[in-house]
Amino acid sequence: METLIQPKTLKGFRDLLPDDAALRDCLMETLAKVFRSRGFVPIDTPALEYSEILLRKSEGETEKQMFRFRDNGERDVALRFDLTVPFARYVAMRKDSLYFPFKRYHMAKVWRGEKPQAGRYREFTQCDFDIVGSDSASADFETLALIKASLDALGAGRFTIKISHRGVFNRFLARLGLSEKSEDVLRAVDKLSKAGEESVAEELSSLAGDAAARDALEYVKSLSSFDETLAHIEEMAGGRADDTDRIRAIREMMEACGIAESFSLDPSITRGLDYYTGVVCETFLDDLPSIGSVCSGGRYDNLTGLYMKERMPGVGASVGLDRLMAAAERLGSSESRAPFVDAEIFCQDASLACALQKAAASLRAAGAAVEVFPDSAKMARQYSVAEKKSIPWGVFVSAEEAKNNLMTLKNLKTRETFEGLSAARAAEKILASRWNG
Amino acid sequence: METLIQPKTLKGFRDLLPDDAALRDCLMETLAKVFRSRGFVPIDTPALEYSEILLRKSEGETEKQMFRFRDNGERDVALRFDLTVPFARYVAMRKDSLYFPFKRYHMAKVWRGEKPQAGRYREFTQCDFDIVGSDSASADFETLALIKASLDALGAGRFTIKISHRGVFNRFLARLGLSEKSEDVLRAVDKLSKAGEESVAEELSSLAGDAAARDALEYVKSLSSFDETLAHIEEMAGGRADDTDRIRAIREMMEACGIAESFSLDPSITRGLDYYTGVVCETFLDDLPSIGSVCSGGRYDNLTGLYMKERMPGVGASVGLDRLMAAAERLGSSESRAPFVDAEIFCQDASLACALQKAAASLRAAGAAVEVFPDSAKMARQYSVAEKKSIPWGVFVSAEEAKNNLMTLKNLKTRETFEGLSAARAAEKILASRWNG
Repeated sequence: METLIQPKTLKGFRDLLPDDAALRDCLMETLAKVFRSRGFVPIDTPALEYSEILLRKSEGETEKQMFRFRDNGERDVALRFDLTVPFARYVAMRKDSLYFPFKRYHMAKVWRGEKPQAGRYREFTQCDFDIVGSDSASADFETLALIKASLDALGAGRFTIKISHRGVFNRFLARLGLSEKSEDVLRAVDKLSKAGEESVAEELSSLAGDAAARDALEYVKSLSSFDETLAHIEEMAGGRADDTDRIRAIREMMEACGIAESFSLDPSITRGLDYYTGVVCETFLDDLPSIGSVCSGGRYDNLTGLYMKERMPGVGASVGLDRLMAAAERLGSSESRAPFVDAEIFCQDASLACALQKAAASLRAAGAAVEVFPDSAKMARQYSVAEKKSIPWGVFVSAEEAKNNLMTLKNLKTRETFEGLSAARAAEKILASRWNG
Repeated sequence: METLIQPKTLKGFRDLLPDDAALRDCLMETLAKVFRSRGFVPIDTPALEYSEILLRKSEGETEKQMFRFRDNGERDVALRFDLTVPFARYVAMRKDSLYFPFKRYHMAKVWRGEKPQAGRYREFTQCDFDIVGSDSASADFETLALIKASLDALGAGRFTIKISHRGVFNRFLARLGLSEKSEDVLRAVDKLSKAGEESVAEELSSLAGDAAARDALEYVKSLSSFDETLAHIEEMAGGRADDTDRIRAIREMMEACGIAESFSLDPSITRGLDYYTGVVCETFLDDLPSIGSVCSGGRYDNLTGLYMKERMPGVGASVGLDRLMAAAERLGSSESRAPFVDAEIFCQDASLACALQKAAASLRAAGAAVEVFPDSAKMARQYSVAEKKSIPWGVFVSAEEAKNNLMTLKNLKTRETFEGLSAARAAEKILASRWNG
């Protein structure tokens, strides 16, 4: 006998069992429906690209985590670590086949060789959507409204989308004479919710002195209402300007569309990345804020700067699918998915296999989703498969019933049984029960 | 100014433009619905695995084409080149969390460093489904019936699923004393439709002599009916046995379920791989047979042999998504997809942006899928975006209409216009037109 190969997966990589895969796929299908219904179209790009394209002349933390290698043709290639860089390359390369403003979504795997931690994987799915080719309040608002529509459609419960504006923050930093250090200040402030005020105050003090640190902490405070907070940061930034007018225009749209209560203005939201230039946002579940932001994004000046001369402003966000799946589990909402199959057709006698398939065909023709147990296994095993798949109905066909194209229907929960039904009658009962849970 | 990076993709890899991505996603969603409705559940496995797992101790052509490298932890890893090997590893590793017979589908990317040719890519999507843990006619039939249901649901037009049985062929080869050379004979016969009878006859002659070559070509002939062909190969294989009884049982189920006319018995179908042991099948579009099989599969003895001792028989098939997409293009059926968005809300005056968003919110609440053009660009450009996205309706909101929450609806095909409509009335017209095409 040959020696066996030990079946194992790589550290930081994971298999999805059927229930998890079904949950993830259903969430992604829901997202796709919402994205499409608002004019976002899907695209696809290769998992593997030239390293030069993905590295973008930078060697940040993320780039160091790339899965990079030489392919059989000695090309320097790497697996994509996000969907934004490939999108920038795509827009620059395909611009003549596209139309602008271009609204795309892309849901696909990305790979990062991070140190594996609880809940962090080296392979994960990103769900991004962006509008490029428009620098308007309308595009900012469509992005924010789509975050709300997406989370509503996913059944994420109550949540708050916290917004802020990098332009206002930059004006404020310029007044403090901290423009040069803006990235460091941003990164310090970004840690506020995790590290706490004291630790951030210390970091800011050593960066910019005590007075500036105090001012910065004053700036990032949320006051009791959207409008008060807006007035506060506007004043600290030196008065009214395009950036605060943009916030007002977006706010007006939120109110006109009746969704303002899902949003708050939170100046401590900065998004660590220097990439963003306008509105930025993070989204927290009201019942599970500790899980972190489940959808983040913002406006950027120029998506494609490294690949073409034309400027391409845009705004977009990324839904945190893994966090939402974890939240669904912790909030107990993951069990609400409707079963894929209405009825298991049990096999008590292998010689009736053909009659069972015929019953299945009739039930399917009448609109029911059914499967046939293919072997005359012990009934306990057959019941257990139906239970594992949350199948609500069982069907039996006796030799006598088979002769007359009849069947017995059993409610697997209540154990109520209906004998001698036609396929049409059985399907009717099955379909009626779909609506009563 | 910095020098630009030339945007490009790797040879053999491709971007999907929105229409192609939408077509592919819609085909995959249709497949997922059909698979689920018959009790198949989704799983997921990592793109990257230990090379040792994927190589399976063999070094065949496919394995040579692997994207294989050392990761940052010096592990010998590779991108999967199919979904079958990872599935075998998955079943062996997860068997205690699964239930058998286990019916799974998996639609995901695979990578092969093949020489790029027309229509062949180094990254492509596979759509596999399998039933493992049952060696029954019922499982064979469910697989074949699912191929038919899938292609019907995809709107693939008329097609023929050609089946045959490796067991019968092996018995026939044993009678000719060719068991030792069965793999070579299989591979020669597999070329029949491409290379033609003469060339295959020559190859068979040099393999096994003229007499055996004549016999083999006689065996692989399709006669005028399923039953005649079955009688013919049964006789040439030495008479009735389990394998031909299995074909009869499957045939009986096809007839009982009213789908027999989609299937033919074609003994020349062998599937090159030595992996298969029972029923095998290939599927050809009646209007486009030259495109090759669009769904192939068969029964195998033992999926997990390399990874565990327990035997795991199964049966499954793989839908050729790329071929079906090419076929949809060539048969002109790809344009039938319903547009994702019902109406484009045009922007003629940036100061009305908020009113446009309000109109969008009202239309969405009434069930219509709409998008707002975010800038007051030239109307020609706005119309062109709506046209590129096949959006059937346009909406205009004048300053006067905005005051009264009214809007003007325009059929973008007939140019018929309806002024001063409420959102409810506009949505009604839009939704009614969905059903009239």
